[in-house]
Amino acid sequence: MEQPTSPRIPAHELTRFAVAVLGAAGVPDEDARVVAVSLVEAQLRGVASHGLQLLPLYVNVLREGEVNPRPAMTRPVDAGTTATIDGDGALGQLVATAAIDLATEKALAYGVGVVVGRRAFHTGALAPYAERAAARGCIGLVISEGGRLMAPAGGLGKLVGNNPLAYAFPTRRGFPLVLDFAMSAVSGFTVTDYERSGRPLPAGWIRDGAGRPTTDPAVFTATMGADAGGTLVPIGEHKGYTLAVAHDILSGVLAGGQFGKGLGIPEDSVSVYAQAVRIDRFLPLEAYYDRLDQLIDQLKAAPPAPGSAGVVVPGERAHARRAAALAAGVALAPATLAALRHLADDLGVPPPAPDAAPAA
Amino acid sequence: MEQPTSPRIPAHELTRFAVAVLGAAGVPDEDARVVAVSLVEAQLRGVASHGLQLLPLYVNVLREGEVNPRPAMTRPVDAGTTATIDGDGALGQLVATAAIDLATEKALAYGVGVVVGRRAFHTGALAPYAERAAARGCIGLVISEGGRLMAPAGGLGKLVGNNPLAYAFPTRRGFPLVLDFAMSAVSGFTVTDYERSGRPLPAGWIRDGAGRPTTDPAVFTATMGADAGGTLVPIGEHKGYTLAVAHDILSGVLAGGQFGKGLGIPEDSVSVYAQAVRIDRFLPLEAYYDRLDQLIDQLKAAPPAPGSAGVVVPGERAHARRAAALAAGVALAPATLAALRHLADDLGVPPPAPDAAPAA
Repeated sequence: MEQPTSPRIPAHELTRFAVAVLGAAGVPDEDARVVAVSLVEAQLRGVASHGLQLLPLYVNVLREGEVNPRPAMTRPVDAGTTATIDGDGALGQLVATAAIDLATEKALAYGVGVVVGRRAFHTGALAPYAERAAARGCIGLVISEGGRLMAPAGGLGKLVGNNPLAYAFPTRRGFPLVLDFAMSAVSGFTVTDYERSGRPLPAGWIRDGAGRPTTDPAVFTATMGADAGGTLVPIGEHKGYTLAVAHDILSGVLAGGQFGKGLGIPEDSVSVYAQAVRIDRFLPLEAYYDRLDQLIDQLKAAPPAPGSAGVVVPGERAHARRAAALAAGVALAPATLAALRHLADDLGVPPPAPDAAPAA
Repeated sequence: MEQPTSPRIPAHELTRFAVAVLGAAGVPDEDARVVAVSLVEAQLRGVASHGLQLLPLYVNVLREGEVNPRPAMTRPVDAGTTATIDGDGALGQLVATAAIDLATEKALAYGVGVVVGRRAFHTGALAPYAERAAARGCIGLVISEGGRLMAPAGGLGKLVGNNPLAYAFPTRRGFPLVLDFAMSAVSGFTVTDYERSGRPLPAGWIRDGAGRPTTDPAVFTATMGADAGGTLVPIGEHKGYTLAVAHDILSGVLAGGQFGKGLGIPEDSVSVYAQAVRIDRFLPLEAYYDRLDQLIDQLKAAPPAPGSAGVVVPGERAHARRAAALAAGVALAPATLAALRHLADDLGVPPPAPDAAPAA
């Protein structure tokens, strides 16, 4: 996605810009900062689909009143190991951050914490939330709801959300061991990339509206906003389907939010399930780190597969990308940069500047 | 797998037989009953790989002293939301049952419970454990460790366990919504079935020891017990790989048991992670059931995909198989029936009788 000719913009400048834009759209500064960090973190890790390209969409739903810039989000007082947050139509980053932080507080106090949140807009990338729990000696798990882009096993129609999960496990390697994925074999963004470059898809990625396998990306992209049409194939077919349904129950059903066909309308229909497990309730943290070091060493000692530079531990690649982008700056896709400049004009906010110095 | 010519044996008679066999191998009656129910439940649901065919193996490891027929299993006194069980080399069913039951007690008391267990032999099918939590108004999650049959993403070698998970959600449909699957696209048993019937595998199921895709089942089966050789491909490639690693950490690393390369030797190297979440801490149970009914109705209303009889909700098919087998009896594969008769002779236990009446 990156273009070598794009100017590299420092991460702090992208954060400054996103905070200013969200502020201009009515979001209080503290909240704008949470959302900006979510977008910049995704961008730094190379997950452009959850990065700055979302900012124009966010501004749009804020302006249209589909998302509440000043939600009266319930932040429940401690009631033991569990809690439910009502997002009041907030940007999803606020609900997800509140949920994992509260779950972590509960895990630190009681051993385990589960907090669900409802009535949120798009949560962005999940990994950074799970990592907040890992940074405090817990195993973090965050589950949320994605677009309804899959069909149920044996049936037709866009009925099943591509509901992702992210686990984060602390390590002493300088980065947490992290997984973060949705339930389809590939994302809709990948299908779009194939279409843009005129390539047919590998077999097994999508089906048409009648349930027939196809390698034509247009079958999916042409019907992306519609209720019927092409669907993404779940990982492991019925396996991914059943886990997607489980995630819908854990987030939407349990949180009292939208679920199943209710997902997607209204815009603030997303729910989230956040869980933290305190590691030193099971074994001393140092013993846990020793054991995880052994596991990581074993994996990394494997001979490389053909065409591979060697084994990558879950989370390692994103961490390396993040470190490189923090050092060298972020090269946005030209279309994203153009959209951000347009947004800057529109809102009277200084555009992202490649040579910006960090704020004092 | 079923042969129409095999005699159908009542489930209670299979249970009677398994209890008697395990008893003859030194397992106390109460424990033998737990293990027998695990094998019979898998058989009833059509999961023959985790059914009665395992009984000769279990007897063998008990006789060889690799599994402890009278383990001094720790059953920790309540210490809040979490606990660790040491299995002392027990049959895995005993450790998994104790873990989910204790996690459920904790969830009923505190909202959430997480119990890990180590030093267990093979746990059998996971779904029935998760269902024990669901039967008491909780969402059950059980994670365990499977055979090291997968390679890490980007690397070679059987380094990653096919570590399964099972979720169970109570419903008011007469069966819980259940998922239970390992991380490979298909099981080793399925590969063996293809080899037996002389069929090549579909693309994407296995790789050879050098990481090259192959459709020859023998590449996998010929090296099944060996440290190197053919591997199963994870669902979603790196997605299934990362989730398998997460499951190894949640069970083996956290429980203080074996993990990574340590899995498989000794025989009692399996760990388990059991979690229960009490539903009515989040919403009234009746409201939860209402919402889940809506979700199930939506899924079942989908038009059938080509070649399908319609959508099956996760757990529904296994439940239907179970009901049919309870009514009509279980038709074991001829090889399994022969092995059980041999075991009966060997141990001086009456063999399974098709016409046995239930015990008074």
